[in-house]
Amino acid sequence: MTDTYPTSPRSRVRRRPDRASYDAAAVHAVLDAGLVAHVAYVIDGQPFVTPTAYWREGRRLYWHGAAGSRMLQAQAGGLPVCVAVTHLDGLIAGRSAFMHSIQFRSVMAFGRTRLIEEPGEKAVAMAAFLERLYPGRTREVRPPSETELKQIAVVEMTIEEAAAKTKANGAGMIPPDEAWPVWSGVIPISTLVGAPQADALHRAGLPLSDSLAAYVAGGRLSDILEASLADQPGFSA
Amino acid sequence: MTDTYPTSPRSRVRRRPDRASYDAAAVHAVLDAGLVAHVAYVIDGQPFVTPTAYWREGRRLYWHGAAGSRMLQAQAGGLPVCVAVTHLDGLIAGRSAFMHSIQFRSVMAFGRTRLIEEPGEKAVAMAAFLERLYPGRTREVRPPSETELKQIAVVEMTIEEAAAKTKANGAGMIPPDEAWPVWSGVIPISTLVGAPQADALHRAGLPLSDSLAAYVAGGRLSDILEASLADQPGFSA
Repeated sequence: MTDTYPTSPRSRVRRRPDRASYDAAAVHAVLDAGLVAHVAYVIDGQPFVTPTAYWREGRRLYWHGAAGSRMLQAQAGGLPVCVAVTHLDGLIAGRSAFMHSIQFRSVMAFGRTRLIEEPGEKAVAMAAFLERLYPGRTREVRPPSETELKQIAVVEMTIEEAAAKTKANGAGMIPPDEAWPVWSGVIPISTLVGAPQADALHRAGLPLSDSLAAYVAGGRLSDILEASLADQPGFSA
Repeated sequence: MTDTYPTSPRSRVRRRPDRASYDAAAVHAVLDAGLVAHVAYVIDGQPFVTPTAYWREGRRLYWHGAAGSRMLQAQAGGLPVCVAVTHLDGLIAGRSAFMHSIQFRSVMAFGRTRLIEEPGEKAVAMAAFLERLYPGRTREVRPPSETELKQIAVVEMTIEEAAAKTKANGAGMIPPDEAWPVWSGVIPISTLVGAPQADALHRAGLPLSDSLAAYVAGGRLSDILEASLADQPGFSA
């Protein structure tokens, strides 16, 4: 297996190909920095896009939902889907109207889905999801019951093609703009974690779980998710 | 015009309808707190989802891109699209594996698109976008040239149906979990603005533009976008 994703006309980035990469490491870095994906699928010619929490293992993406949900029912039968993960990193304010833009990291991935329905496989997948976000949490919490597992469905998507597209630079400029007397630059945007808030049944003296310790107030969510993954060799490659 | 969006089977929220709202004010509040939407569309049966900056005016959404882009070409002819805007607000850590979840605000909107191609109309739309994000910026920067306007296309989507779905509460619990000795609660997530960074051509003494003054380091992007809108009556309703 090579370390790039194959491309075709559907996945090849045509606008600004200089910002694109099909390198698996680049694609995975964007995917691993995120928690919410947007999954597009078609039912009777009508496009749908649904936000969902997801995780990655190798070249497969996973998400889950209620067993009876329209999205998961529609995705049971090997349906083609398109998944986007997008991080907004900054607002670019140029000297000319045309040179305003945003900084971002994004991935568009194409593949087909299958539903994980066998209870044992489903339990393994759900445990993997919890561990991916909160390493060690499966040993801290009450395990899922058979009834609970029946209520959910897990979708596995093998990534057939994928492209990362990123824009990290500042405002472009054409020569006449140089002397234009206006502030130009970047307003950074970060998605940060706040201080954990215990719920109403919290018992005094019960410390924050070890599995949540990485979620330190003020930390960047992307950084926490990436660091968490580094401790879990099973998820990489 | 009533103050709710019409629904049909494609837009009605079936899972957890208690979290859904078709109220125009609720839908618009989620839309107005965001900057990046995910637009799903179909080309030859294949779903695509593209992240894009967007803005709202009344019951219409707008986005733009390179005139030759596949997305905008595909959306030129009244294509049905589905647009999702999603805000991740927190991670919910329950006492049982099953009760882990996320806090979010989201909107799914359905409609058809038309391309704005007339240069004057395009110029007005692009100025509206800049003003929506940075009130007053059109008077500060170099205006777009005809050549620049030719390079972009603007899509207008009339929202036919829309649903907001939000989850703001903490972890659910079933009775056996109450005594489970593990920390349970919410880890808040916020998308924040950092300190503006002037670019390399910055001239000493040139202050941050008035149009960018609302982007104060440490501010929540959602709050800034909503406050900015409050100053622009043309965008509401």
